[in-house]
Amino acid sequence: MAAEVAEQPTVLARLLAEGAAPAREVASILAGRSPRFVLLAARGTSDHAALYAKYLVEVLLGLPAGLASPSTMTAYGVRPDLRDVLVISVSQSGTSPDLVEYTEVARSCGATTLAVTNAPGSALAETAELHIDVQAGVERAVAATKTYSAELLALWQVIDALRGGDGSAAEGVPSRASQLVGRRHEVAELASRYRFADRMVVTGRGFSYPTAREAALKLMETSYVAAHAFSGADLLHGPLAMIDEERPVVAVVPDGVGATAMAPVVERLASRGADLLVLGGQQTREWGTARFTLPPAPEELAPVTDIVPLQWLALEMSLARGFDPDRPRGLSKVTETW
Amino acid sequence: MAAEVAEQPTVLARLLAEGAAPAREVASILAGRSPRFVLLAARGTSDHAALYAKYLVEVLLGLPAGLASPSTMTAYGVRPDLRDVLVISVSQSGTSPDLVEYTEVARSCGATTLAVTNAPGSALAETAELHIDVQAGVERAVAATKTYSAELLALWQVIDALRGGDGSAAEGVPSRASQLVGRRHEVAELASRYRFADRMVVTGRGFSYPTAREAALKLMETSYVAAHAFSGADLLHGPLAMIDEERPVVAVVPDGVGATAMAPVVERLASRGADLLVLGGQQTREWGTARFTLPPAPEELAPVTDIVPLQWLALEMSLARGFDPDRPRGLSKVTETW
Repeated sequence: MAAEVAEQPTVLARLLAEGAAPAREVASILAGRSPRFVLLAARGTSDHAALYAKYLVEVLLGLPAGLASPSTMTAYGVRPDLRDVLVISVSQSGTSPDLVEYTEVARSCGATTLAVTNAPGSALAETAELHIDVQAGVERAVAATKTYSAELLALWQVIDALRGGDGSAAEGVPSRASQLVGRRHEVAELASRYRFADRMVVTGRGFSYPTAREAALKLMETSYVAAHAFSGADLLHGPLAMIDEERPVVAVVPDGVGATAMAPVVERLASRGADLLVLGGQQTREWGTARFTLPPAPEELAPVTDIVPLQWLALEMSLARGFDPDRPRGLSKVTETW
Repeated sequence: MAAEVAEQPTVLARLLAEGAAPAREVASILAGRSPRFVLLAARGTSDHAALYAKYLVEVLLGLPAGLASPSTMTAYGVRPDLRDVLVISVSQSGTSPDLVEYTEVARSCGATTLAVTNAPGSALAETAELHIDVQAGVERAVAATKTYSAELLALWQVIDALRGGDGSAAEGVPSRASQLVGRRHEVAELASRYRFADRMVVTGRGFSYPTAREAALKLMETSYVAAHAFSGADLLHGPLAMIDEERPVVAVVPDGVGATAMAPVVERLASRGADLLVLGGQQTREWGTARFTLPPAPEELAPVTDIVPLQWLALEMSLARGFDPDRPRGLSKVTETW
């Protein structure tokens, strides 16, 4: 897991160079279809990449989007009218039977289908009409890390090309990844305060909500912490009640609109005496009881690399507890669900 | 809270009688618009009603649907093309500024807008073009109960009318609610096994996934338990690792397709030694280490009343811990988010 976290600058640099042309090609086909609605289908870590893509589609393309509930087609047998719909299926292995079936049915129902995987020969890549290879190389650790950030960047590349971008906004991504990979020691120090925490909350808003979700999943997978993720708004609608001094909160608030929208949430958390670790930029320099300063980035691209210190956090917490982050109990690398 | 849980048979019977005509009226207007996509916007408990409606829309109407991310319009200022889109906003109080603004913007972007609230004079009811009143009466407890089941039934009524149903499938709902309300003592016994649990997982699939989500929220709000909800499929993609003998699991599996799809999940849970409470019907009579038998119901309508024993569970756990379920710490009845 540590090797794969550290490999991310290389993976992202490769994708930036080699993924640009395929992304433009897919985008030009998609533009010809003029989709009016986008559905995203994924599970686990890839579901958080899908959620990031939902924000990209809505904010950068101005198209309504939703996360698919594959069971409606695979278990309940629904055959909806999906003309004018773009279905994007995201999966590192490209093998989960429910995603393959969902994509196949969606295609037969008239959707334009695009698979984003780390496995160009996989069933999912072959079932979808279009495919993007995130080119992350073999991932051995059960907890996905480099395939996650690569999925994010690949999705951004396609959507940026669709809105007429030239991809240059992402030029700084590999060096930002590199900076964050190099700050493992800083995260290790922060991790020590959570040595005995068995419940945590991770929160963010807008583009950073997927980062909060993915961080919580990494913590659950590797440290067995009951880590909850909430969007800042949803946190105030109920779950706030379970937060007290014993329940550490991690807020992901890179500079931008999402951080502005999080200000009232952080205020409420402070008034409840919450122990708050802020991963944030300049806007949030007064917030929190502990802090990890994120380097500047365009808000829409920050999630590609903001996850790095949170991957380190999950890894360091797992090691501090005497677990093996490379072998989470009860899990295997490829999860097949129906 | 107890009085409001117990009031649900009356509330649902009233809505069944008085809500049928307004539902048909709204449905006939919606049918004239022929929406091609449905977006659902809500927060907290109402977000789970929205998720239920997403399954109804997809399965009963065969239309693609998604949950809205209001921040894309309210914080990021996006103005998407929403012609042919039906936006359903669900909120008991009808006052949360972000939902009101989202609905207003959606309407100005061409969407047909429908608000489902318990407050016909509210800002949300007046902002949306169409409104359905769930007629649940004043709800005093912070933890929403009767407004939740009423929202579910009201959403079902509109969608059933849209597919040409006459509403008769729901005739048994109030008496099933009554049966389940009357079994509080049975739930109190089950609650005793969770007296010292501070982490729980609730799971379900398809139509029952919203029930799992809502049950987890009630547990967080009233008992401050770190209760996680996962769809059965997502549980296997990572979170399974944090489940052991110390982490009780509650599975919501009324008879139907969702229960069939949950069989492999329950097998995996059993093989990890999980303590499993099954709320289920005949199909699942061999499952679990503890059991609450659900009376029969059409699968699509079971969620309207399956929540009752889980509301009792949250209440009984709160009382057993010496908390006041009517005054969850840190929360107020109306949550305003921007």
